[in-house]
Amino acid sequence: MFNKRTKIKQLLATGEAGQTVTVMGWVRTFRNNQFIALNDGSTNNNLQVVATLGSFDDALLKRLTTGASVKVTGEIVASVGKGQTLEVKANTIEILGDSDAEKYPLQPKKHSLEFLREKAHLRFRTNTFGSVFRVRHSLAFAVHEFFNRKGFVYLHTPVITASDAEGAGEMFRVTTLPLENLPKTEDGAIDFKEDFFGKSANLTVSGQLEGELGAMAFSDIYTFGPTFRAENSNTTRHLAEFWMIEPEVAFNDLEDNMNLAEEFIKYLIQYVMDHNREDLSFLAQRLAEEEKQLPQDKRSELGLIEKLEFVLNNDFERLTYTEAIEILKESNHNKKKKFQYPVEGWGVDLQSEHERYLVEKHFKKPVILTNYPKEIKAFYMRQNDDGKTVAAMDILAPGIGEIVGGSQREERLDKLEQRMKEMHIPAEELSWYLDTRRFGTVPHAGFGLGFERMVLFVTGMTNIRDVIAFARTPNNCEF
Amino acid sequence: MFNKRTKIKQLLATGEAGQTVTVMGWVRTFRNNQFIALNDGSTNNNLQVVATLGSFDDALLKRLTTGASVKVTGEIVASVGKGQTLEVKANTIEILGDSDAEKYPLQPKKHSLEFLREKAHLRFRTNTFGSVFRVRHSLAFAVHEFFNRKGFVYLHTPVITASDAEGAGEMFRVTTLPLENLPKTEDGAIDFKEDFFGKSANLTVSGQLEGELGAMAFSDIYTFGPTFRAENSNTTRHLAEFWMIEPEVAFNDLEDNMNLAEEFIKYLIQYVMDHNREDLSFLAQRLAEEEKQLPQDKRSELGLIEKLEFVLNNDFERLTYTEAIEILKESNHNKKKKFQYPVEGWGVDLQSEHERYLVEKHFKKPVILTNYPKEIKAFYMRQNDDGKTVAAMDILAPGIGEIVGGSQREERLDKLEQRMKEMHIPAEELSWYLDTRRFGTVPHAGFGLGFERMVLFVTGMTNIRDVIAFARTPNNCEF
Repeated sequence: MFNKRTKIKQLLATGEAGQTVTVMGWVRTFRNNQFIALNDGSTNNNLQVVATLGSFDDALLKRLTTGASVKVTGEIVASVGKGQTLEVKANTIEILGDSDAEKYPLQPKKHSLEFLREKAHLRFRTNTFGSVFRVRHSLAFAVHEFFNRKGFVYLHTPVITASDAEGAGEMFRVTTLPLENLPKTEDGAIDFKEDFFGKSANLTVSGQLEGELGAMAFSDIYTFGPTFRAENSNTTRHLAEFWMIEPEVAFNDLEDNMNLAEEFIKYLIQYVMDHNREDLSFLAQRLAEEEKQLPQDKRSELGLIEKLEFVLNNDFERLTYTEAIEILKESNHNKKKKFQYPVEGWGVDLQSEHERYLVEKHFKKPVILTNYPKEIKAFYMRQNDDGKTVAAMDILAPGIGEIVGGSQREERLDKLEQRMKEMHIPAEELSWYLDTRRFGTVPHAGFGLGFERMVLFVTGMTNIRDVIAFARTPNNCEF
Repeated sequence: MFNKRTKIKQLLATGEAGQTVTVMGWVRTFRNNQFIALNDGSTNNNLQVVATLGSFDDALLKRLTTGASVKVTGEIVASVGKGQTLEVKANTIEILGDSDAEKYPLQPKKHSLEFLREKAHLRFRTNTFGSVFRVRHSLAFAVHEFFNRKGFVYLHTPVITASDAEGAGEMFRVTTLPLENLPKTEDGAIDFKEDFFGKSANLTVSGQLEGELGAMAFSDIYTFGPTFRAENSNTTRHLAEFWMIEPEVAFNDLEDNMNLAEEFIKYLIQYVMDHNREDLSFLAQRLAEEEKQLPQDKRSELGLIEKLEFVLNNDFERLTYTEAIEILKESNHNKKKKFQYPVEGWGVDLQSEHERYLVEKHFKKPVILTNYPKEIKAFYMRQNDDGKTVAAMDILAPGIGEIVGGSQREERLDKLEQRMKEMHIPAEELSWYLDTRRFGTVPHAGFGLGFERMVLFVTGMTNIRDVIAFARTPNNCEF
């Protein structure tokens, strides 16, 4: 057993002067030939290790460079330095791994996020990404805790799927066919019977349809897994591979669905407020400094923590698409032609600029928009009695835009089949899905939360590539 | 708000006679024109709803068929029926969705697991799969709880990867190239620069290498995500798409690694024993009945729950590969030539029959085998001083075989580079991985637990297709 160490987070929280401890970690800085700032990833707060002058060989001290790993045994003592109450006076220092100061890419200075994206394998060792990924962890755990407490069943819906019926976006093909020598059928088409699954297969864009199958037995299920879009979108909000959470609940109508989504988002935020206060404080400060570079009118009105508190303490604004169109149409912003896409009438899909206007300028809080025109929504959404709209809901968040998309589902077989026909969705391929409407159908509803967008919202980061470990985007599949 | 209901599990546990409740769910059976066995997926224990004779229309009663969904409001009363202490006397019964008894595939009788595999979209509605997937949920939650409590960071390693360096198995290609018209370079090769990621990409076989990058910053990380093997294995233990948990811990050596894995497995089992007792009892009974069909010598010596208790209460047997080879070589089984692959000497990989002999016949408990010949293990495993073996560990479980594979990792740059050269692994493609050994390398170790194999072990199911929602295997990608 080598790993007999005290984690730095625990040491700083509960250590007592006089205790002898072993700590291990990486050197962040080494000052005045005696003060090591040591980090082990458990917290951004470095442990100060004191190598008393004259007690250690020069050869050893020279190796205490940024990035080097060490094992230190010593005594906890009260600290007189600012920003810490405890430090460790080293008895022994062992270098576990050197770090050539000339070559180590992370110097003890501020690096740009762009530079760190290129060094994604090392950026976890910085304060910013340490905090981001600890918060991401907490959010993921809170997802599971929230649903587990409510008695939901976590369903792992398939990643590889032969169904492309939802039409949620461009898909990646999954194949084992030899591209250099594709098997062909007699009429010259590619013979997918020879492929691994005996048919054409893709990466999933959503686990919803399979999730509904689970909800028709367990009542309450959720998924949390990777989903994929093969869209050539090089934006700060899109990834080709991202994680999504999709609860699906039997017996829920649209209002139940909105209530669940709002409660869920608030639970996640509260969890991080309770468990990652230090990380949030660091990220809030980081954001404030970043925003100092911006012109006044581009800065956030609220600091990061104030924003999260505001969301926790206020009801989300709920209104229909139709009401939203009226607000947008009548807005000064529209009348002064400040929208790139002017809002002229009912029926068009909302652009990101419209969503952000509603959230950031008009209501200044998260907004739930409901009852969209059926023409711009998916086939499985429940048709309202007006014949024009469906029981959809999107949640829009400040700075992010759409963070949740969901709906009550069409549980009536005849209405569903008719809509599929209108939208040219082949019923025979979704026979298993229609079975849920044939046998014991019930009202039900669900939604999808884009996990990385939630992490963006909570961390105050602005590029989605900075909140996932190794981003997959067009022409980028490193690590 | 439609969903104002009491879950049946909660009602049976804490309901009190005299309360008025609303329940919703699916009819399992309807007996004597008055007793509805109602299930909502929260438990296998059906709620008995009594439709007092003469109180309801015949037209309604005729629609109370197996699989139909209903909303019932009524009064909780003490039950005189056996197997239940409470039932609900219905005041109102509303049919939410009919289920044509002639067409509904699940009849109130025993269906074979093979039949239910074809009906995977409906099998969640059976007792067996209800229990299996509630246990699976609990195991997944316990995974997160275990690591969260220890301060591990949950890292989402990428599913799509351009790195195929680990060589853990055949991979699926991920592409957006048009197969009918593949772009070619000047020399006639397929031009992957035109592909989505600008290079050839695959589905991951393991998140370990990326996990190590995280461990070199956070000290303790774990992954829990889907992994893929494009192997043409049609067995009861292999899936093309399965979920894996991979912790990776800085400062852990092989012994620390074994301790963590053993503690982890026991935690998962204990969690299910504490939270899913009813489901385990059902599954234990199911298994016992299945085994009655088998000849005496093929039956398990312990019942399901006894087996789990035995694993909880005993240390795993730890021995080296070399010791295991000696035991196998000297066994009567080997001498009587009962192994398909006779054990003749040191150096060969163990077959499933050998692993099962050690676990099921010799030690009769889980076994951790360590220090395998380096020739049969991956390049990243730490080389032992003997020059022949590496610090690998595999955990073998009764009835399952290998359930965990792991190792201490080679943290010494020169040794790692040398081994990669010997194994023809291109160092330039893994430059990011080698950086962890260049800058502050530390001893570290990790392992992978195949999640479905763990679910098999805990549920006593025998075919891996029965413990994942929608199995992906050669020629099978339904739903």
